Amino acid sequence: MITIEKIRDMKRKIDELKNAGKKIGFVPTMGYLHKGHLSLVEISKSISDITIVSIYVNPKQFLPGEDFERYPRDIKRDKDLLVEAGCDILFLPDDNEMYPEGYLTYVSVQKLSKILCGHSRPGHFDGVTTVVLKLFNIVKPDYAIFGEKDYQQLIIIKKMVQDLNLDVKIIPGKIIREEDGLAMSSRNVYLSKEEREQALCLYKSLNLAKDLVKNGLKDTEKIISEINNFIKKFDKAEIDYVKIVDSENLEELKEIKDRARLLLAVRIGKTRLIDNCELSL
Amino acid sequence: MITIEKIRDMKRKIDELKNAGKKIGFVPTMGYLHKGHLSLVEISKSISDITIVSIYVNPKQFLPGEDFERYPRDIKRDKDLLVEAGCDILFLPDDNEMYPEGYLTYVSVQKLSKILCGHSRPGHFDGVTTVVLKLFNIVKPDYAIFGEKDYQQLIIIKKMVQDLNLDVKIIPGKIIREEDGLAMSSRNVYLSKEEREQALCLYKSLNLAKDLVKNGLKDTEKIISEINNFIKKFDKAEIDYVKIVDSENLEELKEIKDRARLLLAVRIGKTRLIDNCELSL
Repeated sequence: MITIEKIRDMKRKIDELKNAGKKIGFVPTMGYLHKGHLSLVEISKSISDITIVSIYVNPKQFLPGEDFERYPRDIKRDKDLLVEAGCDILFLPDDNEMYPEGYLTYVSVQKLSKILCGHSRPGHFDGVTTVVLKLFNIVKPDYAIFGEKDYQQLIIIKKMVQDLNLDVKIIPGKIIREEDGLAMSSRNVYLSKEEREQALCLYKSLNLAKDLVKNGLKDTEKIISEINNFIKKFDKAEIDYVKIVDSENLEELKEIKDRARLLLAVRIGKTRLIDNCELSL
Repeated sequence: MITIEKIRDMKRKIDELKNAGKKIGFVPTMGYLHKGHLSLVEISKSISDITIVSIYVNPKQFLPGEDFERYPRDIKRDKDLLVEAGCDILFLPDDNEMYPEGYLTYVSVQKLSKILCGHSRPGHFDGVTTVVLKLFNIVKPDYAIFGEKDYQQLIIIKKMVQDLNLDVKIIPGKIIREEDGLAMSSRNVYLSKEEREQALCLYKSLNLAKDLVKNGLKDTEKIISEINNFIKKFDKAEIDYVKIVDSENLEELKEIKDRARLLLAVRIGKTRLIDNCELSL
């Protein structure tokens, strides 16, 4: 695996690979890699000639007061994991490369970026779309793989790609879970032992909803109410939102139909966790 | 010259040209072409293998109440002019191609898009950057040529290209004028005979400022005051702004220095005209 830190060097390398007819798969990350990220690398390897992973903790997608400063970082460990996973190129730019002094340009996907997590974290998704567009312009991937854990992010990126006529194909990767069901996240490291136990309320809520739907309940208001009541039993859990939406356009649904998706955001202590699943009839 | 209306067809053609190693020059326009546009085509031809011109009256860069509906259009005449100028490909998309139902994504260059024309026309430049980014993603030009008449637009596009790590090189084209000095513009067709005469106050203001600077005046406030007094003598002219700015970052200057640029926007009757020039010591 080679590591490239400069945008200019990355572009030169990409030109070389494109000229040689290589198909490029790309996995953008903020590092502190776990099996979720590595599953995306695996998908990329299965469909591309060259797999590029970027590690960049993007300051523009953190709000003031959020965890940008303490976001976990361990580049040495990340590099070892990427070598083992068969990543070809690590792109590792710094802030000065990505946002030099006087930076002014932002991309925004209206409506979709204002709801759900965007409602609790205003400006977050503009930071995401801006950095992802920049990375796409630098890496010029044929495929970019995004995990379904950040489901709203996946939908917003797909919409940006469609609207801006980009050539990259967005590939979703399934949520990877700990043995007990907690969705893998770099932020899980923030959890105390007790919080780690209570964090399971997210996964259990997904299963509760699936059971309710399996038993014939279609009224989303009732399903959401059951989940709210269930999560309230966990004293360290504070619900940010519980929504059932159309899995393509994220519009709230009154009744379960073909493309329903349950999305959760719950604060466990000071740590905000998200999870989601399909709800099919 | 071939005409392409669909984005998909354009992308396929571009792939073919890129694979053949052709350098692509691109001139985005809103049509109703004049010698200013054709001079940009000429520049493109001198530096590229293939010259592509787009004609698209972009609704997103007109504000409610502006002249989108009555903006002059004459595709037949435009095609004849482009054939004569040696354009290779005309890209002629419609609104449904560019902004299909449910379109949501916008690009914005902060600060630069809020001042000068952006102050009088809020949202205008977001419409410009959005459509230009889309066109760049479709046409993938090596060079894109923009006239200096829309000087603020040129600076904003350059900033977007730099910030978003795009590969296109932006080439400026000099202002082309009528024999008496009026800067060519598709909007000149709106002017009555009397307005057409008074519209010369813009060009004359540029010359007045150049003379003042040549005679040693460096204080921009005094130069601007002289121009204001001069334009006030024209009864159909209403000043929108008269500013002297740094020609790279558009910041207002107190004193003429190396990179000074005079920018004017003046309403002649109902028609808003702009013009600009360098002011050098």
